[in-house]
Amino acid sequence: MDAAMIIYLVPATGLIALLYAYTRASWVNKQDPGTAEMVEISGHIADGARAFLSREYRVLGYFVAAVAVLLAFANYSNAHSSWLIAVSFVIGALCSGTAGFIGMSVATKANVRTTQAARTGIGEALNVAFSGGLVMGLSVVGLGVLGLSLLFIGYGTIDGWSTIKVINVLSGFSLGASSIALFARVGGGIYTKAADVGADLAGKVYEGIPEDDPRNPATIADNVGDNVGDVAGMGADLFESYVGSIIGTMVLGAAFITVPAFAADSAFSKIGAVLLPLIIAGAGILVAIVGSFAVKVKEGDSPQKALNIGEFGASAIMAVVSYFIITMMLPESWSVGGRDYTSLGVYWAVIIGLSAGVMIGLVTEFYTSIHRSPVFGIVKASITGSATNIISGLGLGMYSTGIPAIILALAIIGAFTFSGMYGIAIAALGMLSVTGIQLAVDAYGPICDNAGGIAEMAKLPAEVRERTDELDAVGNTTAAIGKGFAIGSAALTALALFAAFMQQADIQTIDVANPIILAGVLLGAMLPYVFSAMAMAAVGRAAAEMIKEVGRQFREIPGLREGTAPADFKKCVDISTKAALREMLLPGILAISAPVLIGFIDKSMLGGLLVGVTVSGVLLAIFQSNAGGAWDNAKKLIEGGIEFDGVTYGKGGDVHKASVVGDTVGDPLKDTSGPSLNILIKLIAVVALVIAPLIR
Amino acid sequence: MDAAMIIYLVPATGLIALLYAYTRASWVNKQDPGTAEMVEISGHIADGARAFLSREYRVLGYFVAAVAVLLAFANYSNAHSSWLIAVSFVIGALCSGTAGFIGMSVATKANVRTTQAARTGIGEALNVAFSGGLVMGLSVVGLGVLGLSLLFIGYGTIDGWSTIKVINVLSGFSLGASSIALFARVGGGIYTKAADVGADLAGKVYEGIPEDDPRNPATIADNVGDNVGDVAGMGADLFESYVGSIIGTMVLGAAFITVPAFAADSAFSKIGAVLLPLIIAGAGILVAIVGSFAVKVKEGDSPQKALNIGEFGASAIMAVVSYFIITMMLPESWSVGGRDYTSLGVYWAVIIGLSAGVMIGLVTEFYTSIHRSPVFGIVKASITGSATNIISGLGLGMYSTGIPAIILALAIIGAFTFSGMYGIAIAALGMLSVTGIQLAVDAYGPICDNAGGIAEMAKLPAEVRERTDELDAVGNTTAAIGKGFAIGSAALTALALFAAFMQQADIQTIDVANPIILAGVLLGAMLPYVFSAMAMAAVGRAAAEMIKEVGRQFREIPGLREGTAPADFKKCVDISTKAALREMLLPGILAISAPVLIGFIDKSMLGGLLVGVTVSGVLLAIFQSNAGGAWDNAKKLIEGGIEFDGVTYGKGGDVHKASVVGDTVGDPLKDTSGPSLNILIKLIAVVALVIAPLIR
Repeated sequence: MDAAMIIYLVPATGLIALLYAYTRASWVNKQDPGTAEMVEISGHIADGARAFLSREYRVLGYFVAAVAVLLAFANYSNAHSSWLIAVSFVIGALCSGTAGFIGMSVATKANVRTTQAARTGIGEALNVAFSGGLVMGLSVVGLGVLGLSLLFIGYGTIDGWSTIKVINVLSGFSLGASSIALFARVGGGIYTKAADVGADLAGKVYEGIPEDDPRNPATIADNVGDNVGDVAGMGADLFESYVGSIIGTMVLGAAFITVPAFAADSAFSKIGAVLLPLIIAGAGILVAIVGSFAVKVKEGDSPQKALNIGEFGASAIMAVVSYFIITMMLPESWSVGGRDYTSLGVYWAVIIGLSAGVMIGLVTEFYTSIHRSPVFGIVKASITGSATNIISGLGLGMYSTGIPAIILALAIIGAFTFSGMYGIAIAALGMLSVTGIQLAVDAYGPICDNAGGIAEMAKLPAEVRERTDELDAVGNTTAAIGKGFAIGSAALTALALFAAFMQQADIQTIDVANPIILAGVLLGAMLPYVFSAMAMAAVGRAAAEMIKEVGRQFREIPGLREGTAPADFKKCVDISTKAALREMLLPGILAISAPVLIGFIDKSMLGGLLVGVTVSGVLLAIFQSNAGGAWDNAKKLIEGGIEFDGVTYGKGGDVHKASVVGDTVGDPLKDTSGPSLNILIKLIAVVALVIAPLIR
Repeated sequence: MDAAMIIYLVPATGLIALLYAYTRASWVNKQDPGTAEMVEISGHIADGARAFLSREYRVLGYFVAAVAVLLAFANYSNAHSSWLIAVSFVIGALCSGTAGFIGMSVATKANVRTTQAARTGIGEALNVAFSGGLVMGLSVVGLGVLGLSLLFIGYGTIDGWSTIKVINVLSGFSLGASSIALFARVGGGIYTKAADVGADLAGKVYEGIPEDDPRNPATIADNVGDNVGDVAGMGADLFESYVGSIIGTMVLGAAFITVPAFAADSAFSKIGAVLLPLIIAGAGILVAIVGSFAVKVKEGDSPQKALNIGEFGASAIMAVVSYFIITMMLPESWSVGGRDYTSLGVYWAVIIGLSAGVMIGLVTEFYTSIHRSPVFGIVKASITGSATNIISGLGLGMYSTGIPAIILALAIIGAFTFSGMYGIAIAALGMLSVTGIQLAVDAYGPICDNAGGIAEMAKLPAEVRERTDELDAVGNTTAAIGKGFAIGSAALTALALFAAFMQQADIQTIDVANPIILAGVLLGAMLPYVFSAMAMAAVGRAAAEMIKEVGRQFREIPGLREGTAPADFKKCVDISTKAALREMLLPGILAISAPVLIGFIDKSMLGGLLVGVTVSGVLLAIFQSNAGGAWDNAKKLIEGGIEFDGVTYGKGGDVHKASVVGDTVGDPLKDTSGPSLNILIKLIAVVALVIAPLIR
């Protein structure tokens, strides 16, 4: 077998991921969904989630069709590209959309089954919830790798197409993924927080009813939000990073084709560096599946330990496996443009990416953990009221950008020193290589969260809720690491795409001493602020609608307060759905039009814009996400009872109230505007890459 | 007379400014300070302010001495520099420190005399308050121009010194100004907000006593804070911008000396472009004095109109005057490095700077004015509680970065298109040319604020407080514009210094496609976050101490609550003073060491750092300052009573309480961490410029 035939193994790993996801999904499906009441509640959640997704996808359908036509026309007569870029785009959008749909469908089944399993014990509940998350994780990597590799193989058979042209056309896939991510993450984020803030404020403050109380009309919407925002949204986010880092690396690898050491390489037909990211991704799928085997606990085992072994174990295996893949696929050393590269250097770049991701994750965990001093600081500040709680959280969020920025800076310099821009791109991929299991752990959290909500609504014994809460808490550490991964990988992916853009647009330098480029940096750095503001304003408007509606139902539905008449859940689900779809429009237009506009003014100014948006976006995302996470946990800490200077503070007091304000402020920051910035920076970079052949 | 003799007129304008400031100060001094009680209260404020300043200056003394020794050693054997840079540094620090001392001394006299004047009418009160502010304004420009021009003339007489060397050595003056600004703005900001937040929270929340109540022990510290933060701090901030933009322009102007059109210029000994910023600054002083004549109202005249005529009138005159100065001093056209310049182009750059300043100011005013929709939005959000109030304010602040960023980007591109980097530098100076009157209006606000506090403490009739409040409100519009000026000019000044740094460090390009430089941008962009966080944490810690102390006094001083025993003001003043001096240390070290460290690693990476810190700092400053201003005014709007959907909300209700939370959160943002960023971005740029000869 020709070694280059290895490319055909890549779609096979994608298929394996999907098949294994299917078996996990069937297993989840077979679990006991519990009482009729539980089935009914989870049915409402599943219906709400499906309703949102189907409406979102309808809107997306128009959007994708319109952009596809534009792409086809714009690239029709371009020698470096082809109208087929529109096909890549549509398939990319379909793959991401399908992954989101599968993941969310299973998550809305896993939630109630986790609740039911938690009635008997914590171990079984973890298995259900994790399996649900794993389906999301494997669908993302499976469809990502399958779509990309089949298109690459297919385009490769077209007569007269150079590898560079193939990759140019392939980049549409990444744009498709980004488009879905924009809608899923921003729209999903608006949905979930409109419902959450609405349910919280309306329920607790105005009607004296807890947010998970079945009498609260917004409670189903809140639970739907966990699925559309935290499961489908996070999935689309990582799908975008995953695909973006693969394509970015392929583009940069294409620059090595004519290098003698590669040209002489008969085994991989000169394109070893182009194939490498696909092979690493494929291997990562298998490693993630192996890692997932470790996450099966019997009663009495530590769930935390199981998750850790699964996730960190997969990373460790990946570190070993990549060594063999890289040294096999790349020449031992080569030179291009006066720079020396070695296969070992590329390997170190992968390791740098992997470690940087873990380190940023650990820092995130430090700043938001209930066991560390920063969150204690917020708790202490809450004693003097909500104002000091807020000031302290804002300060913590800003402060927490310091170390991640230093880690990222060192990773960038390190990866570049070891193997140039290709090194930076492959470092991004290194960070993302075990996305399959990483995302499983991320999605496991909201499933447990939902399970707890269902337990509450179905009025199950308190111990059930305690177990799901414990599972949720176990996932928090790994989820914090996941957030760090998401932001860090977004930054590196954006840089990989940035480097790819420069190559495709034929830009040699981006000199910020040139004021036009500097202006681009300034405008780019401003975009995350305006984008965040739009997302926050959207949540504010939608939450206000929700609060109004809850008030109306309590006034107009006789018996609702007494629990004798059911709330009109559907109306609340509808409000969140409509608001999310309406409100994502403006930020979406901004994110897509800004790079196109600036790009056609001056391609180097667009380079400046990319630098500005990436740097500013990463920092603002870390700030918002950590401040929000810390506020959340400060509230939880107080709810658990905490002592300062001999006084114990707990649920219900003024200090708790102050901490609830912080938590509510943090909600849209950590779940809407913050994560949306991951999308913004990647999307703008992808748009730049896609229009690169048109402005070169 | 040789036309180059015009340089001797520059110190003369500085002297005129100081003499006129002296006459205004004497006039203020001669006004009636009111009752014995008023004199006593204002005596406490003046004592507290002096105590803070003298302690701050003592700390500064050590700092300045240490840095001076370092500077002298580092530059001793450098051909491009000299140990005399330490002398420039010390004199710069002395000039800024003296201006702050004069301005604050007069402000603490003007406050009580404004109160007294307000007992008879609003017009007379305005005259007193504005005169007090004018002393600050004229001291800043007077000492700035005097110090710079005398040093320039003095160094010019040294045998064998090229103009470039003279300017290199002169740049120490700017570093001196920046050092004082760091201490005055950051330390003053911490002081004022520790006292304000402390007085507010302790008084209102815990003891049920308003912040201006004479029984509140923190109230004097609060009033002292207005003087050391808003008067002396703002003065040092603009002193730094003013001096920085002049020196930045001189450095860039020196590049023209060898250009044939200048070399042939006998009138200005080839250095027309070097002298130009000094001459414009000198002319600006005279124009500001003329403008100030317009701000004298008789009873019945509109105070707003008077301030507007004074400020905008001065800008308009300056626009005309600069035309004649520029066309007189520069050749009609010249070329250097393949670029064509015209004197008219330079003039347009000045106009661009002036207009950009005014426009950014108007945008600031729009987002923070009680008459515009954004603040109404916050008021509306307050109805659903403090969480939505905070979310809405954060969103507004982020959103408000959009237009200023676009204005700045256009100004940068415009000024560069018209006359290169020299154009950007002179645009900064254009923005600052009428600093004399701009700063007068800025300082007038806190004087009126103090006057109101004194009226309250001395239990004067309510109409007196109403009049001072009205005056304060009149100043708000112009003060908002002033904030915009301060931020905008800080950005342009930093860019001017950045360009000067590149020239002196012999850097041709700063290519952000080079990951090392990109890492510099990322680290630079992170600094404003960490710096802000430090400032906010400092305010939090100091305010907590203050709250504790107020509580202690109420518990331990018998009769304090009943008003029969006096509070121990001095203890509170002492807490603020110590906290401010202690807490400014760490951010100060960060700001100074970061550029030195990075600069000695890689000079181009330092260039990246400068770009990052400037871009990110400007945006974060606008965000914080506008969010804070809007929260403040939303609270004021609610206190004045406002109707929504048929319900009237006013003082004391839940909506008001929600708005107080926002105001308290906004306090450190708009008065400590936000303005501190103006200093950070200029300081880092100045440090880079000063070390440029050492790393070239």
